[in-house]
Amino acid sequence: MKAFMDKDFLLTTGTAKTLFEAADAMPIFDWHCHLSPREIYENRQPQNITQLWLYGDHYKWRAMRSFGIAERFITGDASDKEKFFAFARVMPYLIGNPMYHWSHLELQRYFGIDTPLSEKTAEAVWDAANAAIAAGDFSPRALIERSNVVCVCTTDDPADSLEYHALLAKETGFACKVLPAFRPDKALTAEAAAFPAYLQTLEAAAGCVIDSFTALKDALHGRMDLFDRMGCRASDQAFAYLPFTPADDDTVEAIFQKAKRGETLTQDEADAYRTVLLQFFAAEYYDRGWVMEVHIGPMRNNNTKMFRAIGPDTGFDSIGDEQIACRLSRFLDSMAVQDKLPKTVLFTLNPRDNYVIGSMLGNFQTNEAAGKIQFGSGWWFNDHIDGMREQMRTLANLGAFGTFVGMVTDSRSFLSYPRHEYFRRILCGLLGDFVEQGLYPNDVDTLCDIVRRVSFLNARDYFRLS
Amino acid sequence: MKAFMDKDFLLTTGTAKTLFEAADAMPIFDWHCHLSPREIYENRQPQNITQLWLYGDHYKWRAMRSFGIAERFITGDASDKEKFFAFARVMPYLIGNPMYHWSHLELQRYFGIDTPLSEKTAEAVWDAANAAIAAGDFSPRALIERSNVVCVCTTDDPADSLEYHALLAKETGFACKVLPAFRPDKALTAEAAAFPAYLQTLEAAAGCVIDSFTALKDALHGRMDLFDRMGCRASDQAFAYLPFTPADDDTVEAIFQKAKRGETLTQDEADAYRTVLLQFFAAEYYDRGWVMEVHIGPMRNNNTKMFRAIGPDTGFDSIGDEQIACRLSRFLDSMAVQDKLPKTVLFTLNPRDNYVIGSMLGNFQTNEAAGKIQFGSGWWFNDHIDGMREQMRTLANLGAFGTFVGMVTDSRSFLSYPRHEYFRRILCGLLGDFVEQGLYPNDVDTLCDIVRRVSFLNARDYFRLS
Amino acid sequence: MKAFMDKDFLLTTGTAKTLFEAADAMPIFDWHCHLSPREIYENRQPQNITQLWLYGDHYKWRAMRSFGIAERFITGDASDKEKFFAFARVMPYLIGNPMYHWSHLELQRYFGIDTPLSEKTAEAVWDAANAAIAAGDFSPRALIERSNVVCVCTTDDPADSLEYHALLAKETGFACKVLPAFRPDKALTAEAAAFPAYLQTLEAAAGCVIDSFTALKDALHGRMDLFDRMGCRASDQAFAYLPFTPADDDTVEAIFQKAKRGETLTQDEADAYRTVLLQFFAAEYYDRGWVMEVHIGPMRNNNTKMFRAIGPDTGFDSIGDEQIACRLSRFLDSMAVQDKLPKTVLFTLNPRDNYVIGSMLGNFQTNEAAGKIQFGSGWWFNDHIDGMREQMRTLANLGAFGTFVGMVTDSRSFLSYPRHEYFRRILCGLLGDFVEQGLYPNDVDTLCDIVRRVSFLNARDYFRLS
Repeated sequence: MKAFMDKDFLLTTGTAKTLFEAADAMPIFDWHCHLSPREIYENRQPQNITQLWLYGDHYKWRAMRSFGIAERFITGDASDKEKFFAFARVMPYLIGNPMYHWSHLELQRYFGIDTPLSEKTAEAVWDAANAAIAAGDFSPRALIERSNVVCVCTTDDPADSLEYHALLAKETGFACKVLPAFRPDKALTAEAAAFPAYLQTLEAAAGCVIDSFTALKDALHGRMDLFDRMGCRASDQAFAYLPFTPADDDTVEAIFQKAKRGETLTQDEADAYRTVLLQFFAAEYYDRGWVMEVHIGPMRNNNTKMFRAIGPDTGFDSIGDEQIACRLSRFLDSMAVQDKLPKTVLFTLNPRDNYVIGSMLGNFQTNEAAGKIQFGSGWWFNDHIDGMREQMRTLANLGAFGTFVGMVTDSRSFLSYPRHEYFRRILCGLLGDFVEQGLYPNDVDTLCDIVRRVSFLNARDYFRLS
Repeated sequence: MKAFMDKDFLLTTGTAKTLFEAADAMPIFDWHCHLSPREIYENRQPQNITQLWLYGDHYKWRAMRSFGIAERFITGDASDKEKFFAFARVMPYLIGNPMYHWSHLELQRYFGIDTPLSEKTAEAVWDAANAAIAAGDFSPRALIERSNVVCVCTTDDPADSLEYHALLAKETGFACKVLPAFRPDKALTAEAAAFPAYLQTLEAAAGCVIDSFTALKDALHGRMDLFDRMGCRASDQAFAYLPFTPADDDTVEAIFQKAKRGETLTQDEADAYRTVLLQFFAAEYYDRGWVMEVHIGPMRNNNTKMFRAIGPDTGFDSIGDEQIACRLSRFLDSMAVQDKLPKTVLFTLNPRDNYVIGSMLGNFQTNEAAGKIQFGSGWWFNDHIDGMREQMRTLANLGAFGTFVGMVTDSRSFLSYPRHEYFRRILCGLLGDFVEQGLYPNDVDTLCDIVRRVSFLNARDYFRLS
Repeated sequence: MKAFMDKDFLLTTGTAKTLFEAADAMPIFDWHCHLSPREIYENRQPQNITQLWLYGDHYKWRAMRSFGIAERFITGDASDKEKFFAFARVMPYLIGNPMYHWSHLELQRYFGIDTPLSEKTAEAVWDAANAAIAAGDFSPRALIERSNVVCVCTTDDPADSLEYHALLAKETGFACKVLPAFRPDKALTAEAAAFPAYLQTLEAAAGCVIDSFTALKDALHGRMDLFDRMGCRASDQAFAYLPFTPADDDTVEAIFQKAKRGETLTQDEADAYRTVLLQFFAAEYYDRGWVMEVHIGPMRNNNTKMFRAIGPDTGFDSIGDEQIACRLSRFLDSMAVQDKLPKTVLFTLNPRDNYVIGSMLGNFQTNEAAGKIQFGSGWWFNDHIDGMREQMRTLANLGAFGTFVGMVTDSRSFLSYPRHEYFRRILCGLLGDFVEQGLYPNDVDTLCDIVRRVSFLNARDYFRLS
């Protein structure tokens, strides 16, 4: 029996252990996350572990609700200690859940606490964790530096001023680069009630009038220039499905005007607008050398009552099941045929589409980059052992695994870097299995080369991190 | 090499063996099955093993057809012994099929026969099994009691008189509760040719005229009152997909009248009727504290020739692939937003939708129950090692596994209780793997607590079994 | 640690090793491939390993593009040696890819080379492989005979003259049967721009005028007679989804005339035409005792730029995600209800549909054959350890595994027969696991019987190979 989450956690073979040494020595490049640049800049110390763990982590909220915990102890007015105890009570029943592993990795790595968390141990863990916090080194920048992170890409709206990125760029004594990433979801969602208001926000940021689709593109072009000057290397967009409803300029202009007036769009109109604007973005990304990240599959805000009570991103999203293959293929082809397809990372939230995505890559690979089209790592509802291992096996079965750009946290938490360690352990476990089962030569140099690439080097090169 | 299906069957680790002791001590609560209350009441002794195994089990019929056995030896006029021998001949070629395991578990547990069944051993097994039957203890109630079953929920149409439930409730000397469960599929299927005739059946049962949608709801309300008085704790409904086509009263009334006249409904009309009636049911279930079971995914009666020859439920159903996520989300939300969403168990027949279902739960959990929204265990075409293990891993990856209400037989056979044992062995095997791989602390008390909950206690509490 | 791809490759248990001896002794019947009968007849010696490996294998091309290799070294004008070196450089990064295993199996079995291929070993492998080729025994017929192949079914258009099949039938001293298989995809695709031209080709082959749908069926009937005389045992057709849009004669005639004039068909028209023609084919296959193979799921020619440059079948296909269950069921039923459903092998390219296909079989099994309806082996993007194992587990979970007709290469390469070995090793590994885990009795005779059936005997009987 292996000990619980010890130094050989997830490393089931001697080869895996050897490979993990190579992986563990690599720095972290977290090229997609939701950290707040303002919080990094302001760099405030937390008061207790509840603030770090339960103030913004809707994964944990969701787990607590699943156990029947009342909302008061989740997002309500219970005390920080009460909330921590409520979470501790749930923990043992999260057997098999990645949160169980993440939480204990975080206790081990940042707090030096090896005790499994439960109702019984809650008091001791609460005291020990808060003592560690009181002793310092839990501010955002401290956590980032303790985690050996050399660069993070945040997630920023085109209308964002990027002021905190600018301030951070001037800071000395903080080694980690904090780069913006362009996330134009609001601009792409003309069917949203908030779209007209968003246009005003964008007008204010861009300092121009946006009274036509052409003016919108001009404004966004200007914002991309700013992002590029601030070091942006990547864009990011999320969809239930990637649309492909091509339309001519007049049609899109009419749809834009309708949306600007706050009128209801049909699904076809929304898709046509989104298709054409995304084609514009993709060509811009290509010209700037940016990577286009596409997150496919979320179905958001499923619980109207809770959405009204506490808003979006609070744990009420799940996995959709739209058909994706044909439209995705047509969209990518529409860019490739004009030599304007940027480097692209395709993520799927529904793991049933792993093989669709994994085989889609091969349609559009060129010598512009090793692994120009990438299959994004197991994400959100898939960032567990099964999900990450399955994504890796799929990629290995269908493509050139050695080109994989690897893991991102996709997280709002400064404590989430052990998820890179989790990924690397799973990676080394998988490659170790290949070797020990006789499926790949026991060539440690080559294997360590692959592990270093997937852990860090491929992403460094792919995103042009100097 | 492990011996064939011995006492450690499916228990691959020491931890698994320890946990199975806890599981095995739990009674069985079979909260969804298709047993006949009349057969339980009448309690007739079978004559031979063919009557027990092959008279009504379309799983076995299907397997025999797959091997090329002629229908005469399946549902035809061959002798019981010929049918048994035909099945015995197929058995060795069912390698990997759960029926291979169930059949041998049944031979071991009820008949004391350890011999693997094949053409060669058919004569010996036929004789030994029939000798055991002749010696007694194979009547429905004897089998139920020998299996340590404390409660079964049958599957009953709203028009059912529940007379046998009433008779059983008066019996003394039979410890197992036999409760009805409300299965209104016929009422929900207005597009069926049999719908007008069904309304007449329901009128007769309810003792009222059903000349409007309102009258229908009144009649069904009355039937639910009866079911509730008889101890009903659960409803059950099955769909290719759960519809969501909201409609106003006038629209549904018009659809109802059209269906009552036997006119053909459009798909939209059938869905609108079904949506609104199911919303009515869900609110009723909520008010009564009943659990709503939803079985998603079957595609039934695929073989017209055989349907004409031998009717439904004879082994010609399979797995559909409709899109389910969006409509399911909208339906559940339509109840949650009015605080009328009952406790709900979602089953999927297509395992590709495990992640859709497993993530859907989290959208609607509240503190009304631990695991208020449940992911139903691997079912029908998924009730094998892979299917049950995959359902459990999915649930563990996405939710709070410790709240899981576990296994049901969904069976027509009085010999099917070893499927609970099968499930429990798979459960203990999985949790044992977690522990022995270092993914969960080796805390036997907590693990046994989880195993007891999932084997029995959670279901007992969830269905309010006193 | 197991040695890299040694004699026990993929055989992880003693039972697996024992079973593989039985499997390995069986000849190969490759009942679906894309070998050229002309190349077999002409029987030319290759000049070097690049000609064998890289002249026509779009799997390898795709892998090279994934690594960022320029097209010049793939399908361009680089030298054969340059191309081989480019491929060798990619190899180590294909960790986990079946091509890694196939390539090394081919080096071991045909060239006697045990060296793992990489940039470092490329020169040595190039020299050794070409020396082996120069020493002879690498012509198509030599490779087929060295591989113990007793029959191959090629893939032939209805308009094909089958002249090389006729010539091969007269050859003495070549033991392998080369039979045609009927692949009427072009006749089924009335919506294609090339359809009118194809009708002319077919007219020339059939020696008649095709001016009506009836005339088309007559012409195809005649071609099927020819195929049958030449020993044809199987047809093959591939679709994104199998359509079911029934239509009457007048409707189909009108669609046919429209298509013949080169006018654009709607999707419904194309589906109606395809449905009715496929119903005609299916009845013909039934009457002739042919097997109907249906390959479901490809999405072809996704990259327009590359299609224009180098045409179809060059590595730009991937996996689609159409809904398939309902239409497939209705189509098969439409034949079964008139007692004209031929033996049918259903392949799915999207592994998420394994359970739909695996459960579909059972709807239409009869005593006309053991396993009359078959689940085709893991294919194309699924012909790796995970894909083949998953297909086999699904089949075992849902049906009678012992009736499975097993593996095909589906290949254009004369070196691809080790894929049968790969399949057999995976098969024996799986059955060995069942036994050693106590899930099946350790009855070596029965197990070897099953292994021989799945490796060869079932296919021999199913396809009536005398």
